[in-house]
Amino acid sequence: MKDQVHSAARRARIAAATLAATKRVDKDAALHAMADALVDRTASILAANALDVETATAAGTGENVIDRLRLDADRVAAFAQGIRDVAALPDPVGEIVRGSTLPNGLRMQQVRVPMGVIGMIYEGRPNVTADAAAICLKAGSAVLLRGSSSAARSNAAIIDIMRDAVAVTGLPADVIQQISADDRSSSTHLMQARGLVDLVIPRGGAGLIQAVVEQSTVPVIETGIGNCHVYVDADADLDMALAIVMNAKTQRTSVCNAAESLLVHKAVADAFVPRVVRALQDAGVTVHGDPAFCDADADVVAATDDDYATEYLSLDISARVVESIDEAIAHVRTFSSGHTEAIVTSSLAAAQRFTAGVDSAAVMVNASTRFTDGAELGFGAEIGISTQKLHARGPMGLAEMTTTTYVVTGDGHVR
Amino acid sequence: MKDQVHSAARRARIAAATLAATKRVDKDAALHAMADALVDRTASILAANALDVETATAAGTGENVIDRLRLDADRVAAFAQGIRDVAALPDPVGEIVRGSTLPNGLRMQQVRVPMGVIGMIYEGRPNVTADAAAICLKAGSAVLLRGSSSAARSNAAIIDIMRDAVAVTGLPADVIQQISADDRSSSTHLMQARGLVDLVIPRGGAGLIQAVVEQSTVPVIETGIGNCHVYVDADADLDMALAIVMNAKTQRTSVCNAAESLLVHKAVADAFVPRVVRALQDAGVTVHGDPAFCDADADVVAATDDDYATEYLSLDISARVVESIDEAIAHVRTFSSGHTEAIVTSSLAAAQRFTAGVDSAAVMVNASTRFTDGAELGFGAEIGISTQKLHARGPMGLAEMTTTTYVVTGDGHVR
Repeated sequence: MKDQVHSAARRARIAAATLAATKRVDKDAALHAMADALVDRTASILAANALDVETATAAGTGENVIDRLRLDADRVAAFAQGIRDVAALPDPVGEIVRGSTLPNGLRMQQVRVPMGVIGMIYEGRPNVTADAAAICLKAGSAVLLRGSSSAARSNAAIIDIMRDAVAVTGLPADVIQQISADDRSSSTHLMQARGLVDLVIPRGGAGLIQAVVEQSTVPVIETGIGNCHVYVDADADLDMALAIVMNAKTQRTSVCNAAESLLVHKAVADAFVPRVVRALQDAGVTVHGDPAFCDADADVVAATDDDYATEYLSLDISARVVESIDEAIAHVRTFSSGHTEAIVTSSLAAAQRFTAGVDSAAVMVNASTRFTDGAELGFGAEIGISTQKLHARGPMGLAEMTTTTYVVTGDGHVR
Repeated sequence: MKDQVHSAARRARIAAATLAATKRVDKDAALHAMADALVDRTASILAANALDVETATAAGTGENVIDRLRLDADRVAAFAQGIRDVAALPDPVGEIVRGSTLPNGLRMQQVRVPMGVIGMIYEGRPNVTADAAAICLKAGSAVLLRGSSSAARSNAAIIDIMRDAVAVTGLPADVIQQISADDRSSSTHLMQARGLVDLVIPRGGAGLIQAVVEQSTVPVIETGIGNCHVYVDADADLDMALAIVMNAKTQRTSVCNAAESLLVHKAVADAFVPRVVRALQDAGVTVHGDPAFCDADADVVAATDDDYATEYLSLDISARVVESIDEAIAHVRTFSSGHTEAIVTSSLAAAQRFTAGVDSAAVMVNASTRFTDGAELGFGAEIGISTQKLHARGPMGLAEMTTTTYVVTGDGHVR
């Protein structure tokens, strides 16, 4: 299996060198060919997907997981549209990030260049297969796609179609390759192919991400665990606070930018806690609260530190009344995964204090945590949301899939 | 030892939170206090250093290593000046990297914020102690300094003085801490203190860097191995080429941006090879060449692939005649450590081809490899030269020691 992964990575490096020198117009043509081919050959994708769904059903997989696995013609059409959207974005490669002429006359430019070979290790959803292939190709890098075994046939169908389309436009098909999920070890070999793979991005649950972070010798960008907080300040507009809490918790529960924890300043606790508990419960949410929340409503479940540390991804929320904004900040610093926090306040000082005090990829002031998203922030495409501080933090678009080179031009300069 | 490292990291986190909220004027005051104190207390640094030198000498350490370890009043004054130079640089924290108002009225800003806690694992030179402390402090991060045991007393003296000076200005002394080098395991605990340490930067030889890259669970920026090439193209001005080769190889041999390998296009081989071999040999350089170089001069030693892969850091150079610029690029892609390559050419097409074809942190066109340096490129300070693609590539200054946060402001925005 190691040989198989390494030889795929070597083919990817060769293909990446060609791709790095490919003009935008030719990359966009390949992307459009990929999108068209996915639509044209939808039937074969759905046939492969039906086998994956059948196997998962027979294995007693939960309905929500099967929901994410199951494809239909609309979903395939959405993949294709996503790829066309990537084609429409500017090419990040060649952007001059900074440049100047130095005192000695040397001309220095920092230029965006492709990363090289990117490994994706991900679970479940086959849409990641199409998205990642499109984003990496546009950013000039080859991609090695190691999806989960449960989606292996769907992924294989999607990847075969994309490879064929790329090849027809004259680019090397090996810019997109599937790494077999037959054997668990393939992901280990991928994340340890140092020197062959430039970057590994895990997307999936906490267990997957932890394993990649601990075992990888290739540089990793950690993504996606979101234990996001909404803090309702003493100076909050309580109607606004209610709307933001409800949206952040209930608009979509299975995503990393959904709220998982509610902090309420004691000054507004009497007015806000009963109201928000009732609204949450009416929406089917179980509130796991501190004593102040438990006192407010008999159906609130007593929260433990485990609750405060949990990314529920379900109709559950932990909740606590805090003495001060500093206690709210301290709570967030203790329990947050560093994804997104929101403050609801009319006070400029409170907004500034909270923004500076928490240490997360994104801070929302009077807005829902759900806005931490590449599309919402105008990046056009997103390969994941980084919760680490190195390289990229927050939603990652095309630019985050590149690196830079310094090009320094002289006329015989020596030191 | 693990407890000791973790408790230092916890103290660093607390100190870092204070430092993150500290204004530039107060950070600069602390830096000036550090610089003044190092000069005032030079005698105690030199006394500690004398003990380190004595121990190293007794252990039979090589003279070049002892040279790097040995301090005098001028070197200490240079540390102090380096710190004052950092104080004079703009504060990277708070810089707005991008910002816009989204179609729905949300105002989005990407703001530079401190990294948090940075671990430095380094060998030999005590100047890294002062440089790293100053750069991290200015960038708003606490630093954990794990130097080599051979410099432990010198480092302890420097760190004690800097901590005292920082504390006098009212900042927490724990923004600068020494990690004991008494036990080898302390560096392992530092690089595995995930969640407590945000970034580890190794500086030293290939063995150290390899160990950190393989064992660290904290994100790492790899630094400094430089197997740098000079390629003399068919269209090179040969006088310029000779000057650049000699400068890149001999101006300073022990540094990562020195040239280690010379590639010459066959079209100019007859005119250039004998000339460059003679000049190199006159400067005391041993040339490890391919058959073409060996034929040109009896004193050229036959080169192996190991030579082409070696960062000599000495008066040695590997050398080869290539059939074409593409062969030069292929050679560089095979053997380079991705630090710096130089091309000497009058051809725009060749310059563009080489620049796009190699895959290194810096490419010099008609300039010496020695210019890949933070000070030379106008960054003002440098904590190392990254040879990885993630986060920072090339010389790293203050901005590279920070991360960013998205601050998104609405007036009750929900999805």
